[in-house]
Amino acid sequence: MLSEAELIARLRATFDGGPAKPAGTEGIGDDAAVFPGPDGSSYVLTTDFLVEGVDFRRDWISPRELGRRAIEVSLSDIAAMGARPRFAFLSAAFPPDFPDEQRLKLFEGVQEGAREANAWVLGGDLSRAGELSIGTTLVGEVARDRVRRRGDAKAGDAIFVTGPLGSAKAGLELLVAGAHEKGGDDARLVEAQLAPRADLEAGLILASLGRGFALMDVSDGLAADLPKMARASGDLGFEVDIERLPVAPELIRHARERKLDARADYAWIGGEDFALLGACRPEDEAALTEAFAKQARRLVFVGRFTEPGSGYRLKRGDQKWEAASCGFDHFVSRGSP
Amino acid sequence: MLSEAELIARLRATFDGGPAKPAGTEGIGDDAAVFPGPDGSSYVLTTDFLVEGVDFRRDWISPRELGRRAIEVSLSDIAAMGARPRFAFLSAAFPPDFPDEQRLKLFEGVQEGAREANAWVLGGDLSRAGELSIGTTLVGEVARDRVRRRGDAKAGDAIFVTGPLGSAKAGLELLVAGAHEKGGDDARLVEAQLAPRADLEAGLILASLGRGFALMDVSDGLAADLPKMARASGDLGFEVDIERLPVAPELIRHARERKLDARADYAWIGGEDFALLGACRPEDEAALTEAFAKQARRLVFVGRFTEPGSGYRLKRGDQKWEAASCGFDHFVSRGSP
Repeated sequence: MLSEAELIARLRATFDGGPAKPAGTEGIGDDAAVFPGPDGSSYVLTTDFLVEGVDFRRDWISPRELGRRAIEVSLSDIAAMGARPRFAFLSAAFPPDFPDEQRLKLFEGVQEGAREANAWVLGGDLSRAGELSIGTTLVGEVARDRVRRRGDAKAGDAIFVTGPLGSAKAGLELLVAGAHEKGGDDARLVEAQLAPRADLEAGLILASLGRGFALMDVSDGLAADLPKMARASGDLGFEVDIERLPVAPELIRHARERKLDARADYAWIGGEDFALLGACRPEDEAALTEAFAKQARRLVFVGRFTEPGSGYRLKRGDQKWEAASCGFDHFVSRGSP
Repeated sequence: MLSEAELIARLRATFDGGPAKPAGTEGIGDDAAVFPGPDGSSYVLTTDFLVEGVDFRRDWISPRELGRRAIEVSLSDIAAMGARPRFAFLSAAFPPDFPDEQRLKLFEGVQEGAREANAWVLGGDLSRAGELSIGTTLVGEVARDRVRRRGDAKAGDAIFVTGPLGSAKAGLELLVAGAHEKGGDDARLVEAQLAPRADLEAGLILASLGRGFALMDVSDGLAADLPKMARASGDLGFEVDIERLPVAPELIRHARERKLDARADYAWIGGEDFALLGACRPEDEAALTEAFAKQARRLVFVGRFTEPGSGYRLKRGDQKWEAASCGFDHFVSRGSP
């Protein structure tokens, strides 16, 4: 069986095989596709698909949270392109036994996410199926010269993330174990898994700065996504200081109770946190830090990209080791717990 | 349980509940949504979703035909808006046992349909599921003042269709019976069901004429779709002459063998033929007929819209009767054979 990466390579070969694409368009390979918008802007478009039993379990998440989660997944891709969300479209296939009231709650969750992001839901397609599944299409808009891409990193660039990592993985563990407490640490970790929010603000701050930055979202975990950025940017290497990965206090406690390390065992390999991951020239670090500070936000620098072919290295104090690309492969293991 | 129409009404109420939508946008209710494009154009966007066991059966259709069918369903919505297809996006959820070679064939079918329609596939999202399902998003472009809508019909307008109806229903019967012949009439009817083609040419001819026409595609059958156009246009009534419905010669033979009527029992109530359905002022009939004749095409006038609230009537010779809105309700009966 082909891995997700191989299948996507074949998908790309199939769809990029025709004549040259029209000016102003960019296809498969980034968080979203790009095509011309009005008045010197570009539209970016992403589609996502959540399937019951693979991406969620109905006994874990309410229909409203599920609708919200579905749109946040797509909003995160829009954020990763530095774009402003504009238009959303919903496809839902409901099992015959799915109660009407719950369908409406699911719509409300989508609408809530769209409205908070200042996007409009312009379309919907409903059908039935054995398994509940939800497809979202999101269109964002960005000035043509401010589109952010994962393939724009360069050797020597500083690598940053925009928020804490690893909490969603801990939340999933608690849900699988089925014995989490209703409040406190457990509740915060479960919420990180069930009710993530796209970091639209970070995307817009990064798009507002004239310089070029590489950007993507960390949907599959840093261990999987950082190699994607490295490969898309001409097979760069990277070095990450595990000690610098940002983690929430409740994750530190959760990991300690399990005799695990919050950074190495959660923040590095966990998925679905929806922070943004980016890279900038070292001389731009200060300007970026300041732009985030102005919004009372903190950007965390965790390492740097190195020369093409130099490999992936992790370090902690004086220790250094090779990083296996051990993250999440959606296609093989998505939601596999 | 709510019907599809009621659920869509609730969906609309949910998504149209916020502040006024931005200028140049149109939401739920037509074959596609509308939003601003570059250089005085509008983009139209449609999403469709095909689910195994509901919309298709894997033992009836090859992966390549399925990919092609999925994109044609969306292309038909683009045609119905009078637009030119531009960009396509594919989401596919594959069961774990779905062979790699078949996945690639499915991609090829999508690409073949896109390239013939002069559209570019710019994105794809792959995941896994228990049931095979395929989501397509299609973006078309049309001059802002040439967008065609289903709600633009007026009392007195002549109703037309752009191609033969009912063959796909006959093809489905043959597939269900499982005993169709490999060539001849049977093969043509089965092909109408498995390998329909969107009528992009008709949409472009209709968009090229300066006048306003109402337009939509006949995906659910005339008996279901004509009332949708009537309701969207201010609750018009209509009168349709059953005898004038265009049918293929092989459908006439198929119906006769079953002691059924090709027009009343197939063309009127059958779904999934993907012809376009429209309405024009009576004084424009000649110009439309001529525009189609120039492309060696025939437009067929089948009836007319009547005053709001005047009801739905069918006639055949001297006989007249009330039309029950007896078509296909996607949500309740889609693919129910």
